[in-house]
Amino acid sequence: MASPQPAPQLDESSRRVDTVAIVGGTGALGFGLATRWAHVGIDVRIGSRRPDAAQAAAAHLPGASGGENAAVIDGAPVVVIAVPFSAHVETVRSIAEVMQPGQLLIDTTAPMVPGRRGLRPITLWAGSAAEQAQDLLPVGVSVVSAMQTVSAATLQDLDQVLDEDVLICGDRATDKAVAAALIERIQGLRAVDCGPLDISGVSERITALLVGVNRRYKTHAGIRLTGLPVPQTSSGLGRPA
Amino acid sequence: MASPQPAPQLDESSRRVDTVAIVGGTGALGFGLATRWAHVGIDVRIGSRRPDAAQAAAAHLPGASGGENAAVIDGAPVVVIAVPFSAHVETVRSIAEVMQPGQLLIDTTAPMVPGRRGLRPITLWAGSAAEQAQDLLPVGVSVVSAMQTVSAATLQDLDQVLDEDVLICGDRATDKAVAAALIERIQGLRAVDCGPLDISGVSERITALLVGVNRRYKTHAGIRLTGLPVPQTSSGLGRPA
Repeated sequence: MASPQPAPQLDESSRRVDTVAIVGGTGALGFGLATRWAHVGIDVRIGSRRPDAAQAAAAHLPGASGGENAAVIDGAPVVVIAVPFSAHVETVRSIAEVMQPGQLLIDTTAPMVPGRRGLRPITLWAGSAAEQAQDLLPVGVSVVSAMQTVSAATLQDLDQVLDEDVLICGDRATDKAVAAALIERIQGLRAVDCGPLDISGVSERITALLVGVNRRYKTHAGIRLTGLPVPQTSSGLGRPA
Repeated sequence: MASPQPAPQLDESSRRVDTVAIVGGTGALGFGLATRWAHVGIDVRIGSRRPDAAQAAAAHLPGASGGENAAVIDGAPVVVIAVPFSAHVETVRSIAEVMQPGQLLIDTTAPMVPGRRGLRPITLWAGSAAEQAQDLLPVGVSVVSAMQTVSAATLQDLDQVLDEDVLICGDRATDKAVAAALIERIQGLRAVDCGPLDISGVSERITALLVGVNRRYKTHAGIRLTGLPVPQTSSGLGRPA
């Protein structure tokens, strides 16, 4: 492992992040996010356990690079984890060895398993995948959960118009603001502050419900919260001042 | 208890229900539903443990009647339960003594308790309130879950325009069709088939998340599923034929 670069400082003045590392960036959701972000000029670093796969994926996107997970994390202010739930613990334990205080992890994981009648959420002892990640990461690395309700297929297809909300949970307002600003660089996504990390289990469970709706209605459904006192194209968590 | 009337037959030909009993109809959600339904001409029977309170509430609504829970259930094709979670088991056990095969129960309960940081979902052994109800009811009484994400305050205020989805879970398509048709008599609500009753725990948990959003954004948020291949004012679960 290369010696880490100085840890980035995340505060109000650095809300706008221009570099993001995506652990599991060759997967459906990770590559979908990479696609959208790369096309709005963000420096996307695609991470994988297999550097060659990461580099091959990056070659499809403008300005993106690819490498082993630990390498792409090094110095990135924001790291997104987008791996299947079955790889969550192992992957988090692995990146915990390289993440530095001040880096922010956005966890997109939805804990679920295939049941007889479709994908079903499962209950983690920590309460949610995001809290499980927070438990495993070094002190000073914050976790925000997001993106569990956005279709990977829709993200990957730039011809598809996004028009939905992203539910964000986290314990620090500044972390959520950073994540929201990054997510809202993707046109058509509005970030909604859904509360502390301990409510993330709700967002994470919605994925299984949506997968069932998708199968039933033959679509890629998303979530929109109605009644918010802000435009659906707002930014910065859209809360009243 | 009066001797029960013949059990109604619920099938495709009787999708349109014109009578509904609301157990807990004097509460915020129950009275909100009663208000909307009474104003579109549905025969609303408000139930309560206290018949005088039920009658007093019914006096505010056109054509509504009120009475003790067991009395209003008698002969009603559809029964809605809208009680606080803390009263769920006791109430279901009580109505289980009077409900008859063929009657449909729509369970609106969201299992949650006040935590240090707000209302938080709790996990029932049965998986969800709706499944707990199904376990406790006689064979032949079906349960559908719905309405956990619709604001009681908005329902009660007829000047408020509703514009959101109702997540419906249940094991029988005909039951869900009956519930959907009844719910969609309320203008601005679209029923979405979210799958079998065993996914209801997801819908039920969303309530706590929305309550937090409401507090944070000072609103009454609802849920809209985006990307469904049907108009937002559709009816009959809006699935493609």
